[in-house]
Amino acid sequence: MSTANSRNLRQFIGQETSLEGWVHRVREMGGFAFLLIRDPWGVMQTVVDDVTLVRDLPTESAVRVWGTVAEEPRSLLGAELHVSRVEVLSPALEVPPFELNQKNLAIKLDLNLDHRALALRHPKERAVFRIEGELVDSFRTFLRSQGFTEIFTPKIVASGTEGGANLFPIDYMGQRAYLAQSPQFYKQMMVGVFGRVFEVGHVYRAEPHYTSRHINEYLSLDFEMGFITDEQDVMRMEMCFLVFMLERLQKNCRAEIELLDAKIPLPQETLPQMTIDQAKALLNTKHNKELGPQDDLDPEAERLLSAYAEKELGSEFLFITHYPVSVRPMYAMPDLEHPGLTHSFDLLFRGMEVTTGGQRIHQYAILTESIRSRGLNPDSFSYYLEPFRFGLPPHGGLAIGAERLTIKLLQLENIRQAALFPRDIHRLTP
Amino acid sequence: MSTANSRNLRQFIGQETSLEGWVHRVREMGGFAFLLIRDPWGVMQTVVDDVTLVRDLPTESAVRVWGTVAEEPRSLLGAELHVSRVEVLSPALEVPPFELNQKNLAIKLDLNLDHRALALRHPKERAVFRIEGELVDSFRTFLRSQGFTEIFTPKIVASGTEGGANLFPIDYMGQRAYLAQSPQFYKQMMVGVFGRVFEVGHVYRAEPHYTSRHINEYLSLDFEMGFITDEQDVMRMEMCFLVFMLERLQKNCRAEIELLDAKIPLPQETLPQMTIDQAKALLNTKHNKELGPQDDLDPEAERLLSAYAEKELGSEFLFITHYPVSVRPMYAMPDLEHPGLTHSFDLLFRGMEVTTGGQRIHQYAILTESIRSRGLNPDSFSYYLEPFRFGLPPHGGLAIGAERLTIKLLQLENIRQAALFPRDIHRLTP
Repeated sequence: MSTANSRNLRQFIGQETSLEGWVHRVREMGGFAFLLIRDPWGVMQTVVDDVTLVRDLPTESAVRVWGTVAEEPRSLLGAELHVSRVEVLSPALEVPPFELNQKNLAIKLDLNLDHRALALRHPKERAVFRIEGELVDSFRTFLRSQGFTEIFTPKIVASGTEGGANLFPIDYMGQRAYLAQSPQFYKQMMVGVFGRVFEVGHVYRAEPHYTSRHINEYLSLDFEMGFITDEQDVMRMEMCFLVFMLERLQKNCRAEIELLDAKIPLPQETLPQMTIDQAKALLNTKHNKELGPQDDLDPEAERLLSAYAEKELGSEFLFITHYPVSVRPMYAMPDLEHPGLTHSFDLLFRGMEVTTGGQRIHQYAILTESIRSRGLNPDSFSYYLEPFRFGLPPHGGLAIGAERLTIKLLQLENIRQAALFPRDIHRLTP
Repeated sequence: MSTANSRNLRQFIGQETSLEGWVHRVREMGGFAFLLIRDPWGVMQTVVDDVTLVRDLPTESAVRVWGTVAEEPRSLLGAELHVSRVEVLSPALEVPPFELNQKNLAIKLDLNLDHRALALRHPKERAVFRIEGELVDSFRTFLRSQGFTEIFTPKIVASGTEGGANLFPIDYMGQRAYLAQSPQFYKQMMVGVFGRVFEVGHVYRAEPHYTSRHINEYLSLDFEMGFITDEQDVMRMEMCFLVFMLERLQKNCRAEIELLDAKIPLPQETLPQMTIDQAKALLNTKHNKELGPQDDLDPEAERLLSAYAEKELGSEFLFITHYPVSVRPMYAMPDLEHPGLTHSFDLLFRGMEVTTGGQRIHQYAILTESIRSRGLNPDSFSYYLEPFRFGLPPHGGLAIGAERLTIKLLQLENIRQAALFPRDIHRLTP
């Protein structure tokens, strides 16, 4: 006898079977009881005629029940189990600190994060990670289809990649090491080996501020591709990925999208773009917001530009290009036609930067000079620089923040809602 | 005009096209030259009639060449390109520290690791990672098909999972934290949310010894499954995964297996198993090797048992079960029928342990007592213990070391050969 679950219950109509899961709710009706069982994919309705079987059953206990499945159009899944036997596999020992069987988990974020392994049992909390998982998997699937090779690069490194600030120091058996800020150096080096590479993994930023858009350990979706013409090749690859991902979400996560009432954007093959100078002019004209030529966009600018793109350009995504050298890392390719600017881009989505990317410097002499111009010593980067002396082709890439993309897709407020166990200045556990 | 590559060159026979890659070798023949181009997937033969085009072309330069593809049965790919134009995209500035265009990269491991981004360009080095990548991806694909959910758990943690030793300390913005030794606590906690979970990610062990089978950052393939009967359910899941993986390797990595002359084992649906007490009796009888009842198996024991399994049981894989409590972590489920032993297992393959797994304690009272019996304070593990008070079902899981499985599959000597950028007591770069 095989075990049914919330995804296949209707296939068992008329059959005896068992179900496993957690006691979501017991509702005595006078003469019988409804026992709702939450399994990893949904909530199933069961009917218990012998009420004594479930009268003292605490919610959140892990149970296995046996019985016969009957069609029941009024139940959510269109079928219910008539229970003949209940086995308690692991009883709950106390009452949960909040109600997991309400439609919404109406608690403060801090309480949620303090009891994260319980809060995530709520169907809506869990659905966030099903969608994020699909997003991550579609990234890998799409890139593999485009000839990219997956890599796993070290997270214990000898130096930073983004200028040296915001590094977490590690005591590495007596040596000083750091947690990797990004796989940037390694993915560039691997372009010389595999041509196109990607990595999905945590990266670390020791930023001591507490905001709704930063966590100190986040999931970075990185790729790097060789033999490109310029950053437009990288942006095209991202647009194709986004189309692939949004279509796959609609197909594979219908139940989760419905449960969360999420407004998933329609896939568009071409997304609008503007240079950062155009963006600044627009902010000045329309919103009287002044940003200098060397300034980066601030969060307010990103919100205003996104709103403009949605209203005027019909897109919730907007590429900003040609960031000045001053706000990009030393490996950003300078734009010779526009001195002081780079072949770089960010992607804004619903008011937030979700991707940073661009073409990289591939010429050894220009790269060492760029390192020197930042007051850094190329000798500290010798392992990174070596492959640049051996024909590293023109290349570029990007990094997508998985949690940021997820919260914007689902219109959640805080990046912590898309991290299983977020790390921030106040939080090292759970 | 689309670009051909080493995987599709024959489809371009009779057509004009371009190719991209690195100058693998130039061989002047008197009147013409062979220019071998290495792309991310193989090496292509091209013919250059105008020898001046390639006379001063350094090996390892990144190039794009144009020409017409002709059938050529004597070339490796069955086709070659007749070159009309050569564009140097990025010239090599010096001679590589070792020859990348010989059949074997005949250099010492240390030299290889010192110049890792160059050494990996050798087709045989690169092939190791194509196979490891396939192995990792088949792990994920198989587990998804079995209802497992992928998770990403924090690598910055407040305490160790395996007893507290061998932790790398991190300065976490003024607080003391550690690099995760394993996702063990988190994957168990997530059984209460997703039922079945897996994770692919680096884990960290601050073991200060230098051996051919240890690195300090390694890729762990972890899963954990709820609602099991005992560890045999976990072992069955691993056997099914191994069959899936070995079949997929044979199908998707034929060229790499051939290049490396690898002997991939035949998939077997059932693998032999013996208890550790049986294993010790056998070692004593056959090899006069004495191990006490509380001892773990040492590397020599693993080699002898593997050799026995291959010769006498017809399997290169062998499960050892029922390890004593003394050599397993505090979360290992005790075997009530065999006091002092646990519901745990290792998988040996070609003389080395490649998996550790077992059933875990799911009862809150027994788990806190086990923690105390190790001289530890359950209060230090409060975040881990909380979900055990709320119906965590019977569960178990395992961890496979990706690099170990890879070197044993390919019969390589040192675990560093299966890490892109290995970390050990002597090596923090590249």
